[in-house]
Amino acid sequence: MTSPVGLHRVVEPAGVLPQAAWRVDNRPEIGPNEVRIRVERLNLDAASFRQLHEKHGGDGDAVRADVLAIVDSRGKMHNPVTGSGGMLIGVVEEVGRRSPLQLTPGDRVATLVSLTLTPLKITDGLKGWDGRSEQVPAEGHAILFARSIVATLPADLPPALALAVLDVCGAPALTDRVVRGHAGAAVAVIGGAGKSGSLSLAAARRAGASRTVGVVPTEAEAQRLRGAGLATEVAVADARDPVALAEAVTRALGKPADVTVVCVDVPGCEHGAILATDDGGTVVFFSMATSFAAAALGAEGLAADVTMLVGNGYVPGHAEFALDLLRAEPGVRRLFEARVRAD
Amino acid sequence: MTSPVGLHRVVEPAGVLPQAAWRVDNRPEIGPNEVRIRVERLNLDAASFRQLHEKHGGDGDAVRADVLAIVDSRGKMHNPVTGSGGMLIGVVEEVGRRSPLQLTPGDRVATLVSLTLTPLKITDGLKGWDGRSEQVPAEGHAILFARSIVATLPADLPPALALAVLDVCGAPALTDRVVRGHAGAAVAVIGGAGKSGSLSLAAARRAGASRTVGVVPTEAEAQRLRGAGLATEVAVADARDPVALAEAVTRALGKPADVTVVCVDVPGCEHGAILATDDGGTVVFFSMATSFAAAALGAEGLAADVTMLVGNGYVPGHAEFALDLLRAEPGVRRLFEARVRAD
Repeated sequence: MTSPVGLHRVVEPAGVLPQAAWRVDNRPEIGPNEVRIRVERLNLDAASFRQLHEKHGGDGDAVRADVLAIVDSRGKMHNPVTGSGGMLIGVVEEVGRRSPLQLTPGDRVATLVSLTLTPLKITDGLKGWDGRSEQVPAEGHAILFARSIVATLPADLPPALALAVLDVCGAPALTDRVVRGHAGAAVAVIGGAGKSGSLSLAAARRAGASRTVGVVPTEAEAQRLRGAGLATEVAVADARDPVALAEAVTRALGKPADVTVVCVDVPGCEHGAILATDDGGTVVFFSMATSFAAAALGAEGLAADVTMLVGNGYVPGHAEFALDLLRAEPGVRRLFEARVRAD
Repeated sequence: MTSPVGLHRVVEPAGVLPQAAWRVDNRPEIGPNEVRIRVERLNLDAASFRQLHEKHGGDGDAVRADVLAIVDSRGKMHNPVTGSGGMLIGVVEEVGRRSPLQLTPGDRVATLVSLTLTPLKITDGLKGWDGRSEQVPAEGHAILFARSIVATLPADLPPALALAVLDVCGAPALTDRVVRGHAGAAVAVIGGAGKSGSLSLAAARRAGASRTVGVVPTEAEAQRLRGAGLATEVAVADARDPVALAEAVTRALGKPADVTVVCVDVPGCEHGAILATDDGGTVVFFSMATSFAAAALGAEGLAADVTMLVGNGYVPGHAEFALDLLRAEPGVRRLFEARVRAD
């Protein structure tokens, strides 16, 4: 029997899980509990795409060549610098007779486990992609394990829109859980106009937050977020400037936040988030650009009695929760549609 | 007025907190809310010392030169690879008239904020250190800010022993808080025979854990931990092997852990800790070798509904809590005394 978490696909180093592996086996033949997907589109993690984009000075051809080289050498789209991946959509091609995923060939699905652990082979040289956006049309195949998580794409939403929501669906679900644990919380969402940020703001309000502030980097984003009507307050601040961020949050909420949700994909936001959070409060880090040491030592150095959570991308029911938020909140949907159009 | 968190000491880049700074100003002249310490001894963070030791193949002279070069170029002992520092002990030399730290010149103190944000100048070339242990006799000065945390060394304990306890005092305090939140929890401490590990095991038992397992890498460590009598069970496993670690914990506790505390200072333990933890459980990462992305994506990839905490080194009352554990638990004290002697 092949391993439910994919241990049998690890090539090197031996003994680690697929996510920790440098290279996984992306052969198309499936084990009895695996599923093969015909890939249609990759959605690169924002931190990963940003790193590649900046590394190559915005040269799309160079970004495309780099993605192809990564997938070719590692057997998965696992950015070696950021450590992050993304997700994909495709059509189920073959289902092992012992797969527990309840899929049927022909189902259109999105993977909810990271590309960093998903065996992937690209066969079209990414010829349909200009290397300038996170959304990557692609041909090839990917493998799901028994314990992989996958969502059938909803019939009532365009696939690109559903994919954008599913990509960040852990954030609103965990925000919901944390805010319910802080009755009447004042909530700050750093990067509130983005995908995970806007969903998290909507989730915080529904979970009983007394006040919310969405922090954004520019006046243009502030206008978009005000127009969406998702936050009690909207503030403009550079999240990498700890003093400016803490002041902006404290001014908007009338006090430091009880719950601070970090959704910006740039490094260096840990200290500002900690300074912006009240004693006894909670910081949830969703950004893959988060530095563990900066968060741990920053809180210690500031004598900040805050609980800091690693944003786990999996919460049971997260996909339906996020899709329902999009359906119910016109402000969230408008922001997502604008982002998907821009991609 | 100088900044309570030391912003005025940041040289580059501008606008960040001292911990995030590449270089801080270590001049001896203090501001009205600062304190200057005459340094006696540094205690390097375990992950930092291990990295330096391995980088130089155990060559103590090269390690010493590297530490001197880091402090000289950064104005603080902030390992650029691990991002971690350590702490120091010394004697209060001068107290600014507005310092809120309630110190008097001549007080013997230990800093409880990381060396990564503490301005430091070394003046003796570390001539009393062989570069082969984390405990570094040193002459020079260090600066405390208004919001720094510092503990007066207790009169009833040898300074090296107190320093070793204070270095890790956040771990037992946070373990206590987390285990109290999981009534009757089964608790696994990975690295249970180490400093933070043994204190965390003692804290877990006092906080009401129903069963505890201390996981260690070798049979020799297992014997030491059994002799200390701190854990219900002792298991030997390589924490970097996720399947072996999860099996060892599950066998010892009769089920996956409700609370898993990671206290080993080697990279690659995130996946095993997650696999070893029950659905609905909590993982606390204290190791500075923790990778944020590996934890976040690992839990997602395993569809693990676990809460993951960044081990905040500051919990109110943590210093007294840890020192009291050492005084009350002969098993903890024996382990610490053996480690301090070995250093």
